[in-house]
Amino acid sequence: MCFFLDMGFGHSKFVLFFVLVGTIFSMYHQFERIIADLNDVKSKSHEVPRMHNNMKALQDTVDEMKKKLSESEVELQQLRFEIDLYKKDMTGLIDFAYGGRIISIGDTETYETEGLGMLGFRICGQGNLEKRILERSVMPGDCWPFKGHEGSAVIELIDEIIVTNVSLEHASKDLLTNDSITSAPHEFSLWGLFDESEKETSSSHHFGQFVYNLSGPEVQTFAVENPSPTPFKTVEFKIHSNSGHPNLTCVYRVRVHGHLSGTR
Amino acid sequence: MCFFLDMGFGHSKFVLFFVLVGTIFSMYHQFERIIADLNDVKSKSHEVPRMHNNMKALQDTVDEMKKKLSESEVELQQLRFEIDLYKKDMTGLIDFAYGGRIISIGDTETYETEGLGMLGFRICGQGNLEKRILERSVMPGDCWPFKGHEGSAVIELIDEIIVTNVSLEHASKDLLTNDSITSAPHEFSLWGLFDESEKETSSSHHFGQFVYNLSGPEVQTFAVENPSPTPFKTVEFKIHSNSGHPNLTCVYRVRVHGHLSGTR
Amino acid sequence: MCFFLDMGFGHSKFVLFFVLVGTIFSMYHQFERIIADLNDVKSKSHEVPRMHNNMKALQDTVDEMKKKLSESEVELQQLRFEIDLYKKDMTGLIDFAYGGRIISIGDTETYETEGLGMLGFRICGQGNLEKRILERSVMPGDCWPFKGHEGSAVIELIDEIIVTNVSLEHASKDLLTNDSITSAPHEFSLWGLFDESEKETSSSHHFGQFVYNLSGPEVQTFAVENPSPTPFKTVEFKIHSNSGHPNLTCVYRVRVHGHLSGTR
Repeated sequence: MCFFLDMGFGHSKFVLFFVLVGTIFSMYHQFERIIADLNDVKSKSHEVPRMHNNMKALQDTVDEMKKKLSESEVELQQLRFEIDLYKKDMTGLIDFAYGGRIISIGDTETYETEGLGMLGFRICGQGNLEKRILERSVMPGDCWPFKGHEGSAVIELIDEIIVTNVSLEHASKDLLTNDSITSAPHEFSLWGLFDESEKETSSSHHFGQFVYNLSGPEVQTFAVENPSPTPFKTVEFKIHSNSGHPNLTCVYRVRVHGHLSGTR
Repeated sequence: MCFFLDMGFGHSKFVLFFVLVGTIFSMYHQFERIIADLNDVKSKSHEVPRMHNNMKALQDTVDEMKKKLSESEVELQQLRFEIDLYKKDMTGLIDFAYGGRIISIGDTETYETEGLGMLGFRICGQGNLEKRILERSVMPGDCWPFKGHEGSAVIELIDEIIVTNVSLEHASKDLLTNDSITSAPHEFSLWGLFDESEKETSSSHHFGQFVYNLSGPEVQTFAVENPSPTPFKTVEFKIHSNSGHPNLTCVYRVRVHGHLSGTR
Repeated sequence: MCFFLDMGFGHSKFVLFFVLVGTIFSMYHQFERIIADLNDVKSKSHEVPRMHNNMKALQDTVDEMKKKLSESEVELQQLRFEIDLYKKDMTGLIDFAYGGRIISIGDTETYETEGLGMLGFRICGQGNLEKRILERSVMPGDCWPFKGHEGSAVIELIDEIIVTNVSLEHASKDLLTNDSITSAPHEFSLWGLFDESEKETSSSHHFGQFVYNLSGPEVQTFAVENPSPTPFKTVEFKIHSNSGHPNLTCVYRVRVHGHLSGTR
């Protein structure tokens, strides 16, 4: 600063020059700070694009996890649902055929012979095999086997009910040989009998015709196609075709669902 | 720079001026770099608030997922627990009543009639229905039905045990009509009999009184309220009230848990 | 600016000075913008290290969640697998012994006495207890008990099959007293009998020797060590040792798996 005093400038010039020089040096001084700051900021912002990419990747990871988590939750609910159904006879519905009895099988011809070779199971026991369609076990062989692919069973339910659904269950395919899988029923129908002796006369009610799908689950539940406001105590379960077996059809379990007249 | 030589300044002035101008131009030069850098940094840091918001959102997503994942893990453990219990008689506890026998039902009056209308199930079979309370099936109707809401069964266990728990199981509510749900026992008690002929005389031991909660799970296990160090081979299971049915109570299965004297 | 006109500088000096001053003021002016920008950028980039740390933490959280989610998915698949097996006789394999019959137990001595104290279960029923090894229930006591630790059962399968696997099931350890757990078979072997009367003569086929592991699951399935291309209708199941019980061995259920000759 002492230089300026010797320079012979006038007072105003001195002031001006002093201001300029001061400005310059002050700027220069700030410059250093700015550059330091800028370097600091640069080094920090240098990370921004990398962070941006990292965050993009993280976002993708999170999105993917979110999808998987959501799928897990759905599967978890499905498992919960299935586990609970194990305690609820696999359907969660009252089976009014369980504890009921078979009144008649008409002219359906039950297989009585033991040791059905090539079936992958043996039909045990003799007599009244048809009652098995109301029993719980669906282990291979614990079924009602009859000749051909057409059969019928008149079932007395445990109560007079408004019929809403019918379930057909077959043994697990994994426990049956290829040949015996084809003995599963295919098309079947359910009828309400106004009088148990009538059996599908004009006075019976046709609840509907259904198809058991071999590639579906073991227990398949169907809503009746033609509901009736009349409660029935006796129903007829008719099999019209099987899943391909040339001379045998096996029925494991039939459930009839609904509710007592006046309830629900 | 050549301009300066013509300006007639003295040497020191020249140097000073040169330094100033040099400083200014150098600053100006750096300025451009600074501005370029700054623009670069600005464009990068421009993303910072957006990234900040994105990260905030991502953090929220992750927090929410963490919560859900944690809930899933809890549910998964619960499912694992329940699935494992299916292999362990639903309780994971030894049932010393299973395989035992009913010695007496005192003056309890068993329902023997078939076809209990409006119950939603039929009581099948005749005679010794009380033995069903020691059997495994809890399908609707596979129970011991008795008149009224008070009953008693003296059970000979398969071994003399230190009694620790008692379980009462009822059929799944989803498989019962509203009316038959109310036939479930409500209050019951368990007694240890020092002599099977005594039945709740002064010499019997009162293990406790329990309440079966209709809105709970099918199997309900209770720790005995008054444990006894004495092992018992004979216990009395007494029902004191049912869940509301006016004239019928149904008992599906009773389990008695504990351990052999000297073990554990 | 008017100051400059009075300063007596020459034209070129004026221009130069004007340029310098202009430059300085323009720089000064930009300076303010730069500093403002820089402060803005600084405040933004100030967050970068914090964001960096946050993101690092978030990344760690996500990585940990990813691991947990992956573990959950594995457990979920395992549960799905196990739940499905419940519908498939716990193995997912056809059991050609189910529905078959026991032809002979040789000189194996079945325990016939009721009330086996200290066993934690009672062997119910009399006669033909060996047939239980082909039945489904593995509730404590629903087994074939025999004296000692060596026994044998010749089983007629429901079909002539290429034998691929054998399963041995024991009641759940959690439902057995310590003492009765040790009655589980340990080493056992399976033989194919060319003629059911021969029983391990030179003409029988040795499928292999296996070890039931008490600390494993209830059902344990083993691939036969020496497969045979010959289909067998009769097999012999031999127990060579038990899990430690001094005078009793209990067999709950034996399954024999394979496929019909000509299939698969």
